[in-house]
Amino acid sequence: MRKIAVLTSGGDAPGMNPAVRAVVRRALSRGLEICGIKRGFAGMFDPTPFEDLETGSVADIIHRGGTVLLTARAPEMMEPENQDKAASRLKEDGIDGLVVIGGEGSFRGAQTLEQRGIKTICIPGTIDNDVKGTEQTIGFDTAVNTILHAINRLRDTATSHERVFIVEVMGRNDGYLALAAGLAGGAESILIPEIEYNLDDVCDRVLKGIKRQKAHSIIVVAEGAGDVFEINKEICEKIKVDVRVTVLGHIQRGGTPSAVDRLLGSRMGAMAVDLLYENKQGLFTAVRGSEVVPASLEGCFKTEKEFPEELYHLARDLST
Amino acid sequence: MRKIAVLTSGGDAPGMNPAVRAVVRRALSRGLEICGIKRGFAGMFDPTPFEDLETGSVADIIHRGGTVLLTARAPEMMEPENQDKAASRLKEDGIDGLVVIGGEGSFRGAQTLEQRGIKTICIPGTIDNDVKGTEQTIGFDTAVNTILHAINRLRDTATSHERVFIVEVMGRNDGYLALAAGLAGGAESILIPEIEYNLDDVCDRVLKGIKRQKAHSIIVVAEGAGDVFEINKEICEKIKVDVRVTVLGHIQRGGTPSAVDRLLGSRMGAMAVDLLYENKQGLFTAVRGSEVVPASLEGCFKTEKEFPEELYHLARDLST
Amino acid sequence: MRKIAVLTSGGDAPGMNPAVRAVVRRALSRGLEICGIKRGFAGMFDPTPFEDLETGSVADIIHRGGTVLLTARAPEMMEPENQDKAASRLKEDGIDGLVVIGGEGSFRGAQTLEQRGIKTICIPGTIDNDVKGTEQTIGFDTAVNTILHAINRLRDTATSHERVFIVEVMGRNDGYLALAAGLAGGAESILIPEIEYNLDDVCDRVLKGIKRQKAHSIIVVAEGAGDVFEINKEICEKIKVDVRVTVLGHIQRGGTPSAVDRLLGSRMGAMAVDLLYENKQGLFTAVRGSEVVPASLEGCFKTEKEFPEELYHLARDLST
Amino acid sequence: MRKIAVLTSGGDAPGMNPAVRAVVRRALSRGLEICGIKRGFAGMFDPTPFEDLETGSVADIIHRGGTVLLTARAPEMMEPENQDKAASRLKEDGIDGLVVIGGEGSFRGAQTLEQRGIKTICIPGTIDNDVKGTEQTIGFDTAVNTILHAINRLRDTATSHERVFIVEVMGRNDGYLALAAGLAGGAESILIPEIEYNLDDVCDRVLKGIKRQKAHSIIVVAEGAGDVFEINKEICEKIKVDVRVTVLGHIQRGGTPSAVDRLLGSRMGAMAVDLLYENKQGLFTAVRGSEVVPASLEGCFKTEKEFPEELYHLARDLST
Repeated sequence: MRKIAVLTSGGDAPGMNPAVRAVVRRALSRGLEICGIKRGFAGMFDPTPFEDLETGSVADIIHRGGTVLLTARAPEMMEPENQDKAASRLKEDGIDGLVVIGGEGSFRGAQTLEQRGIKTICIPGTIDNDVKGTEQTIGFDTAVNTILHAINRLRDTATSHERVFIVEVMGRNDGYLALAAGLAGGAESILIPEIEYNLDDVCDRVLKGIKRQKAHSIIVVAEGAGDVFEINKEICEKIKVDVRVTVLGHIQRGGTPSAVDRLLGSRMGAMAVDLLYENKQGLFTAVRGSEVVPASLEGCFKTEKEFPEELYHLARDLST
Repeated sequence: MRKIAVLTSGGDAPGMNPAVRAVVRRALSRGLEICGIKRGFAGMFDPTPFEDLETGSVADIIHRGGTVLLTARAPEMMEPENQDKAASRLKEDGIDGLVVIGGEGSFRGAQTLEQRGIKTICIPGTIDNDVKGTEQTIGFDTAVNTILHAINRLRDTATSHERVFIVEVMGRNDGYLALAAGLAGGAESILIPEIEYNLDDVCDRVLKGIKRQKAHSIIVVAEGAGDVFEINKEICEKIKVDVRVTVLGHIQRGGTPSAVDRLLGSRMGAMAVDLLYENKQGLFTAVRGSEVVPASLEGCFKTEKEFPEELYHLARDLST
Repeated sequence: MRKIAVLTSGGDAPGMNPAVRAVVRRALSRGLEICGIKRGFAGMFDPTPFEDLETGSVADIIHRGGTVLLTARAPEMMEPENQDKAASRLKEDGIDGLVVIGGEGSFRGAQTLEQRGIKTICIPGTIDNDVKGTEQTIGFDTAVNTILHAINRLRDTATSHERVFIVEVMGRNDGYLALAAGLAGGAESILIPEIEYNLDDVCDRVLKGIKRQKAHSIIVVAEGAGDVFEINKEICEKIKVDVRVTVLGHIQRGGTPSAVDRLLGSRMGAMAVDLLYENKQGLFTAVRGSEVVPASLEGCFKTEKEFPEELYHLARDLST
Repeated sequence: MRKIAVLTSGGDAPGMNPAVRAVVRRALSRGLEICGIKRGFAGMFDPTPFEDLETGSVADIIHRGGTVLLTARAPEMMEPENQDKAASRLKEDGIDGLVVIGGEGSFRGAQTLEQRGIKTICIPGTIDNDVKGTEQTIGFDTAVNTILHAINRLRDTATSHERVFIVEVMGRNDGYLALAAGLAGGAESILIPEIEYNLDDVCDRVLKGIKRQKAHSIIVVAEGAGDVFEINKEICEKIKVDVRVTVLGHIQRGGTPSAVDRLLGSRMGAMAVDLLYENKQGLFTAVRGSEVVPASLEGCFKTEKEFPEELYHLARDLST
């Protein structure tokens, strides 16, 4: 291993910058050359030369949201001929190893390069926490805190007007963000794709709250759990209360990374380089308890991610 | 003047609590009795007795968003018979003076009570800054800062993906919030009801930014300037760029009040009591330059609010 | 088990309120009576009756820093006769079980009551993360994030003036806070009680940074690692640079609890009640990996807490 | 006027970056060349050529604290021969006009260049708000909000422990910061250089608060009003309460600029260029009410700044 490259791919997540910083500085401290590929896999099809990175290239980025390497979705990486092209490009540039920071889609892209002889190590970076085989992904903690800030603001106005607020948070297929933010935000109900819900029950909980003079109710809904405007309509048909809908949207992606995400990014970035340095491949860096460990990429695609159902019930119990 | 009451009405605004605190404590320091009416004018039709307020009643609220007195829209106050009823209630309770904190609609409600013999002083509290005759309203500064926080987050993801973001902010009839946030947030274009816009021009500015390798573009749109989803569609038809829409919604109302809004609330609350104490009426507290001055309520309804058009042009000039 | 009590003791930590909320609501959902003891163990010597808590007693506190139950150091609990008195008081009040939220000192106080027949479960709540047998304590994550906010601000002024900043953070005996904040904050050097340091090395790192035109240097120092003003003097004697000292002090204790601390508080609070409900005792709730598990109080006093030395070396490696 | 230069000098203040951005972009939009001088006046004695600035040079800085032009105190500018040297350097570089952003010391430096034929316009940028002839300086609003954030955190721990907190804020000669932050933060007492105080009175107010079961007391002290540790000692000798001291220090300088400071910076930066463009000189941009107006530099040094004493009394009245 003499020269490695790093890229960020898919949706951006706070903490990608600390990870990039760690990859670059650990590589340099290991005596490796390191270059950055811009805009995820798309950068491999861009004739612009990859930028060689130095210690100073990643100065003053540990506290910045987003990713200085830029990112993009890369549908072109689905085509085998493009996968060949990308692998050739890396080889021509003398790149022996690659660190890919992103979600499961990016992991799959990385795997196609691995099959073409490029050693790759992946780092799970996505606010959705939906990568199997790791308990946490970089960006998740910051996103939960961002949602809590928004809920804090909504709580002020909800309380002043004695209103019910429906808050849509990200999560097309998974309810991790909604669950963590709902539990930590004291939401009355949390609607997520993993668990069937019943709007009568949601309404009951709202009415129960009103009865004991609760000043406000907050219902957190993951994108994938249903259309919030439709849910609003149904609730208003069932019970006569003043309900407002807020779709948090893209503000959930931004912001300075939290301590957890900076530490995770730093640890995972360093480990990814260490693994390449030891000529390992086909792995990603995973959280297991308080440890960061190497895990098999192949295994990741096969396992099911366990949903922390007990937290869902805890949230219900505590917000009654 | 022996006993006065205070209420907050209309949409809640950060800084209402510091204003309520100032009204209560100044009243007590003037030797007046002071009571709080809950849920705006609606509280006058609620048989529950008004709560007598003490120094401790407003302890620890100066930093809280929303309003501890709760608030509500009060369509019932449009009916003359209800206005009579409300005035009678106040007289029965021995209330000689009333402080109303809210927007222009609330000021009109206050005026109907004035006409029925209740001395009233109004305080402009609304995030929209749309009260005529005052340069600033309580809540505006906090709301602008809240929008800037959101734009900061969007900037991270906009930069990482090299995207254009359309951000809808509050302002059905006025562009004050959009203008201040757009200028302070470095937005490329600001669309407001006061000034006609042209989407070709908006697109030109986006393209110009892309040409000089600007990493992102942000377009701030006041609610009243058009449907953001429609605007998005039109822009995407005109130019092929990656655009995302974010509707900030109710998070703009909440949050701990900023220094400006706490100072404004404190000064206006104290002045409102002083005016009642001097048996003044038919006035509201207004910002003129760095002063807080009494202004005629009647005059407020008649003047036109001057729109700071030069700031609009400044914003255009600086974001080129 | 019919009636339990809860108290917070020692230094306050953000996340104590979510823990109190969880204890109260889980107790009620288990059909137990629950009362709150004010000002930690000191409340047991105050003739004021303990307050019975209801669901509404802990409404709207999940996002509040500090502790609504108030807290105090309780030197009087060192005296056996006071321990007898406290146990008698609890028995007289019909209290069968006690939840104590605090640090190791509080755990020892709890143990003396246990020895006198009061079943107790402890919850580790302290920003210092210095409780043995648990990987994390409630309040630690928020405190690290608070320090990072402060470092962000210092970075602005450090960069503008090209200065070195020495930042003193809490930690009389332990460097956990300093280590986590230093690593996540990109500090050039981290001085902690656990690892011997050498000011020549610190100076070398500063000079090396200046050489590669680093705009600023930040040195994080745990209270227990030495006097920051003395360290400043020594550095200024060794190398001629512009150094400033900032002692963060008590702002590290406050602030709305982070997501991690709210989740930890909620989970630990609920588990503490569940353990009492099952007539368990002599335990505390501990973090092991991603789990919250019951651990032996006795064991806690005997184990050594492992210091994550590899993170210290990672920090050095990444900030070179 | 063909070519102008801009520099930031003295202590850095949040909002300097928006001002620099406005200077640069307005200059370019006026068809002027614009260059940046690094490290304040010191940059004139550094042989490194001044950097020509383009639109992109100030991209993405409107939300950044500190100053991208760097800053320094410049004692060398006190020497007439250095003033000659600096003026010559500017003339050699073809610089016809200069914008100086800083406090009164920087204004005096600017004046010496003016006397040597360099047209200069000054912009008041300092968190202390101590420039005479302007109601507000860039950076003040952000600093007040930063102090309020810190007080919010202290309030949590002060309340939990029922403590008194003494908070030292910046202000060697002036109490503006302390006054605004103390009033907006609900401090019990505010000690500033402008108004004589009496520690018996401070103690009385603390005791009065305790008597009516106030959970905490906060005393804000400007640096120039006395040594906080000495004040602490005296208070503790007079009354037996638990007092803690926090020195906020340099965190007050940093942070993303607030809306007010971004707008002020933008408006003042643009006006400074407009004035140079019209061949004006010897002026600084001043806030008068809601306007930004040109004011005479000479006048600034002669006037006395009016201290808003009524706000001091308001603060006392409202925190009783």
